[in-house]
Amino acid sequence: MKDIVELSITTKEKIDFIDITDKIEGIVSESGVDTGLCIVYLPHATAGLIVGEFEPNIYKDYKLFYSRLPSLVSNEYMHNQIDNNAEAHLLSSLTGPSKTFIVEDGRLLLGTWQRIILCEFDGPRTRRVLVKVMRS
Amino acid sequence: MKDIVELSITTKEKIDFIDITDKIEGIVSESGVDTGLCIVYLPHATAGLIVGEFEPNIYKDYKLFYSRLPSLVSNEYMHNQIDNNAEAHLLSSLTGPSKTFIVEDGRLLLGTWQRIILCEFDGPRTRRVLVKVMRS
Amino acid sequence: MKDIVELSITTKEKIDFIDITDKIEGIVSESGVDTGLCIVYLPHATAGLIVGEFEPNIYKDYKLFYSRLPSLVSNEYMHNQIDNNAEAHLLSSLTGPSKTFIVEDGRLLLGTWQRIILCEFDGPRTRRVLVKVMRS
Repeated sequence: MKDIVELSITTKEKIDFIDITDKIEGIVSESGVDTGLCIVYLPHATAGLIVGEFEPNIYKDYKLFYSRLPSLVSNEYMHNQIDNNAEAHLLSSLTGPSKTFIVEDGRLLLGTWQRIILCEFDGPRTRRVLVKVMRS
Repeated sequence: MKDIVELSITTKEKIDFIDITDKIEGIVSESGVDTGLCIVYLPHATAGLIVGEFEPNIYKDYKLFYSRLPSLVSNEYMHNQIDNNAEAHLLSSLTGPSKTFIVEDGRLLLGTWQRIILCEFDGPRTRRVLVKVMRS
Repeated sequence: MKDIVELSITTKEKIDFIDITDKIEGIVSESGVDTGLCIVYLPHATAGLIVGEFEPNIYKDYKLFYSRLPSLVSNEYMHNQIDNNAEAHLLSSLTGPSKTFIVEDGRLLLGTWQRIILCEFDGPRTRRVLVKVMRS
């Protein structure tokens, strides 16, 4: 078992949402850990991680909500004078880079409608996802 | 000691906030773990977990803030054509399903005004809360 | 190695953002833990923790975004009748009190542009930050 597994996820749009649950489940399963934690960590400052339902309609709603929220507050962010992605940094700070899950019987304890979703806020890009499965 | 303890919390309103701190503290105390972590995990996609002050006025403020935020951004969420709870999914994605606490001397290290609060965004319902206390 | 290290951070403005990454890295390094987790926990209900880029322009953007967001939703929060900091409580609930990082080869696995940032929402004050480094 490798201590940390790294995934590479390619996003397709400026603001995009990718369901990575099956990949994380696969890593947990291969780890051989029966009982413990799974930490999913995104080493990026213009992306984020959320947990939620994932289907084509809610995908559009996530996109609408997160696209508009920063510009509702202001249209004059200073970081856009350097790099045109202040809004992506704000959304990344809001959604956060990591989530911790409980592992039991060799599986993630997720609710029926919960999917682990990578949020791209400044794509398209290739993003790294670090996954650590830890025995308790 | 059971590895994971499950709580059942009944909410009373469409948008509701329930202080579950005493129940979590009880589980930590019964676990016998002196030093470690406590992971509180909500297996739901239309609810969330926050940490904050809890008194009747701030309860109304949480309610006002979280009720209005999604509709401030848009009134035309697509998921509402399937299931009338797009706003609840957005708020769930924003507040997140889990929080990690430090356990020391057999107790949660919380600040004076910090309470662990279950956020109901699509109630009333009965919600499950999974609690894992882990020795370090 | 002490089990939990406590930092004391003095903020200078009502809404302020302080880069505490170097202090956290120092604690991880002194802990001697090679492989594991680092939990950063803020025991306060009017402050928060985010991870993101940190430079003078984005500092102003964080300030603008988080200052305005609660008042965009309402100007009549009830908690302000007791204590004039309802907005700080809302922002604290949104950003959250803790973040979990992966430790590998004795260092935090952070992305190139990721800094660990204490958010002051009701300053200036002196804030406590609890840091636990845990071997896996």
